[in-house]
Amino acid sequence: DRLTHLDDTGAATMVDVGDKAVTDRTAVAEGRVVMRPETLALIVAGDVPKGDVIATARIAGIMAAKRTHELIPLCHPLAITKVKVDIAADAALPGLVVTATVRVPGRTGVEMEALTAASIACLTIYDMAKAVEKGMRIEGIRLLAKAGGKSGDWSAAD
Amino acid sequence: DRLTHLDDTGAATMVDVGDKAVTDRTAVAEGRVVMRPETLALIVAGDVPKGDVIATARIAGIMAAKRTHELIPLCHPLAITKVKVDIAADAALPGLVVTATVRVPGRTGVEMEALTAASIACLTIYDMAKAVEKGMRIEGIRLLAKAGGKSGDWSAAD
Amino acid sequence: DRLTHLDDTGAATMVDVGDKAVTDRTAVAEGRVVMRPETLALIVAGDVPKGDVIATARIAGIMAAKRTHELIPLCHPLAITKVKVDIAADAALPGLVVTATVRVPGRTGVEMEALTAASIACLTIYDMAKAVEKGMRIEGIRLLAKAGGKSGDWSAAD
Amino acid sequence: DRLTHLDDTGAATMVDVGDKAVTDRTAVAEGRVVMRPETLALIVAGDVPKGDVIATARIAGIMAAKRTHELIPLCHPLAITKVKVDIAADAALPGLVVTATVRVPGRTGVEMEALTAASIACLTIYDMAKAVEKGMRIEGIRLLAKAGGKSGDWSAAD
Amino acid sequence: DRLTHLDDTGAATMVDVGDKAVTDRTAVAEGRVVMRPETLALIVAGDVPKGDVIATARIAGIMAAKRTHELIPLCHPLAITKVKVDIAADAALPGLVVTATVRVPGRTGVEMEALTAASIACLTIYDMAKAVEKGMRIEGIRLLAKAGGKSGDWSAAD
Amino acid sequence: DRLTHLDDTGAATMVDVGDKAVTDRTAVAEGRVVMRPETLALIVAGDVPKGDVIATARIAGIMAAKRTHELIPLCHPLAITKVKVDIAADAALPGLVVTATVRVPGRTGVEMEALTAASIACLTIYDMAKAVEKGMRIEGIRLLAKAGGKSGDWSAAD
Repeated sequence: DRLTHLDDTGAATMVDVGDKAVTDRTAVAEGRVVMRPETLALIVAGDVPKGDVIATARIAGIMAAKRTHELIPLCHPLAITKVKVDIAADAALPGLVVTATVRVPGRTGVEMEALTAASIACLTIYDMAKAVEKGMRIEGIRLLAKAGGKSGDWSAAD
Repeated sequence: DRLTHLDDTGAATMVDVGDKAVTDRTAVAEGRVVMRPETLALIVAGDVPKGDVIATARIAGIMAAKRTHELIPLCHPLAITKVKVDIAADAALPGLVVTATVRVPGRTGVEMEALTAASIACLTIYDMAKAVEKGMRIEGIRLLAKAGGKSGDWSAAD
Repeated sequence: DRLTHLDDTGAATMVDVGDKAVTDRTAVAEGRVVMRPETLALIVAGDVPKGDVIATARIAGIMAAKRTHELIPLCHPLAITKVKVDIAADAALPGLVVTATVRVPGRTGVEMEALTAASIACLTIYDMAKAVEKGMRIEGIRLLAKAGGKSGDWSAAD
Repeated sequence: DRLTHLDDTGAATMVDVGDKAVTDRTAVAEGRVVMRPETLALIVAGDVPKGDVIATARIAGIMAAKRTHELIPLCHPLAITKVKVDIAADAALPGLVVTATVRVPGRTGVEMEALTAASIACLTIYDMAKAVEKGMRIEGIRLLAKAGGKSGDWSAAD
Repeated sequence: DRLTHLDDTGAATMVDVGDKAVTDRTAVAEGRVVMRPETLALIVAGDVPKGDVIATARIAGIMAAKRTHELIPLCHPLAITKVKVDIAADAALPGLVVTATVRVPGRTGVEMEALTAASIACLTIYDMAKAVEKGMRIEGIRLLAKAGGKSGDWSAAD
Repeated sequence: DRLTHLDDTGAATMVDVGDKAVTDRTAVAEGRVVMRPETLALIVAGDVPKGDVIATARIAGIMAAKRTHELIPLCHPLAITKVKVDIAADAALPGLVVTATVRVPGRTGVEMEALTAASIACLTIYDMAKAVEKGMRIEGIRLLAKAGGKSGDWSAAD
């Protein structure tokens, strides 16, 4: 095991993927915004029209996926062909669960794009509701699954 | 309580802060990357030169703070005067703890800037170590404290 | 009358606003997307949930206002304090009317920010509905009013 | 007919183009800046060197085409291989007519890139001449033609 | 003497300028593109219309100044109020000399903005002429003068 | 010989590379930051931990390579597959030598990406050390070699 983003001298470097094959790759990532039930109620079923907080966060996540390589220093720019951001209320959390799916026919995977989309969607939810609850927490940003590429398919254990 | 980022019809809107006073504002946010002890060891004390993963994540967090308003749809652009990103190993986690501090003399707070810096630093750590552990999780992205502005000071309960 | 963005030799230059006073400035701009009545119906009252096309265009307009200085070569970066994008259906057009309002306490006006917000919101509407009507046209991108600054207030004639 | 950028639940989504074939695609879009004859004269034939307003607008349009996916939320990032922006005076308008042509070998079309290039070029002209005429209007932003892709060729009716 | 961008532990950090006074600051930087006389002739006096290479490089330099804080990791975002890029032919070099002037009323200087404007203008000249001479070199990117701020005025020795 | 970035009328245009073949292309560029020996000592061997100035400049260069098409008006967006930035001390200069290598399987070369990476890395070094020496100069930004494409391989003469 070694950290592939560091070269032999330990310097950070963008991994050379120029010799990898172009294959169909997908990644799914998740994140959760944990909040008080009252905050969740205000977002989901309150007297504000249902949807605009969620619609805004969804758009923010989609747009962020496209800018992943500008944010994460060693990520490659990729012509991603699909980004989907789903946001669902979870009364047991209580809070909102964000799931982001990204696809690309490319030489490297889109794990970071899916994770970035989920993270920025969660941050947008925080931003839009922070006036009523500053103590919200973003938990469980993680990769759920990836497919394609030489290292093959992978799913989170749980 | 209402969601200030939605107007009377529920449409998303950037809150008008033009009549707020310019005051000195700071915000501190935190995030944690939870990983296997072996992965932490590889980053912190392994045969790779200590620091480059952490140096890269720190830079990514600082740069992301400056782009918060491009990522979070309703955030105001701010001429932030300080961003500091600290990254410390926590053997008990096990993993890395990221703390981001942002300051501005402005009409609105920098909570989102601090949270964005912490999030992108965590994502960068994930990116640089994902070749050895895809199952890392980013947990506990949250505001630790804020100071300044009309709503005054605030600290996380724990 | 002269073009203030060209210097004495005719070269493009960013006007020096460093000696102007910081005053409260606002600008309101408008744009219209003209479409077939069936397309308008599909967006506004069809079996698609009302609002998401409009919610997406509104967010796109707000975000674009913040990036005006990156797009328009000689515009100054400004810490805008408010962006509001309203989108209304107009059956007589038929189509959608976008109105963007931007405010800043600054040394120069926000006309271009308002015009850019309106333009990008219109383009987003086009993008989301172009699968059903490629022939839509964007008309009447114009400044409705501005206030503040040495040149004072101004309103469109009609 | 349906709005392809909304999924079954009405949520905005980036259309998955991953299964589409890579074909040669082009799009041509147009926009017009309507102004007083004196303003047009100042830009085109006055004592300012001919060309710098037009040169600046042309560059702004070309650069904007490359950033379309950052501005229009559901547009795909594309490695466009050509952008051409032509700007011609039209004494009968009176004003300037902007024509933008974009090409890509890709899985999706470049209509939005051409429309964005035309729009930003028009806005840049407005910016550079607004000191002499705030009442200029941008009219007729529209697609003139597209070629390539499964939906085939298309031209504007007139 | 110490490197102010490193904290006590040697970690990179954005210097906190929040307690500095807002003063009028300017910076002037220079860069030179050295080329063969034939290449210079082609740019300046050849059968291509004089000006478009230079007009394009000037616009690129102005736009880059506004994005300095996105490119240089520890630079502060600044609401710069003026950018001027002058480009002159120098037959003795032979080549083109770029001079960039930036101004801001701010808490920190604009040296990096001026240097970035000069650098990107030089790179743009290289890009536009590289088809005829790949061996051009960019020399002498340096600060000529700065004014304002606690450290006071400074000029290059020669 | 002609300037390929200007069309027949002398207007700036992005060269149409749509008909070029996709080939493996690399480019190597260099830049040098010339400074006093004391400044070099402070960066390389002083009591600040070795590496953070260099680590920051390396990251800045890598990130800038990915944004070349946003900075250089007529550059094509490219899905680059590798960026490597090496920074070495040169006591004889005295100063630091930056070498940037970029690779892409594409229709056009990556000379500008390598030159931009080298330039921004040099500017970052200047930024981080300018508190101790404002008179540093960036010299010798140039292409060392390119490979691939119809025009074939090329190396600098010396």
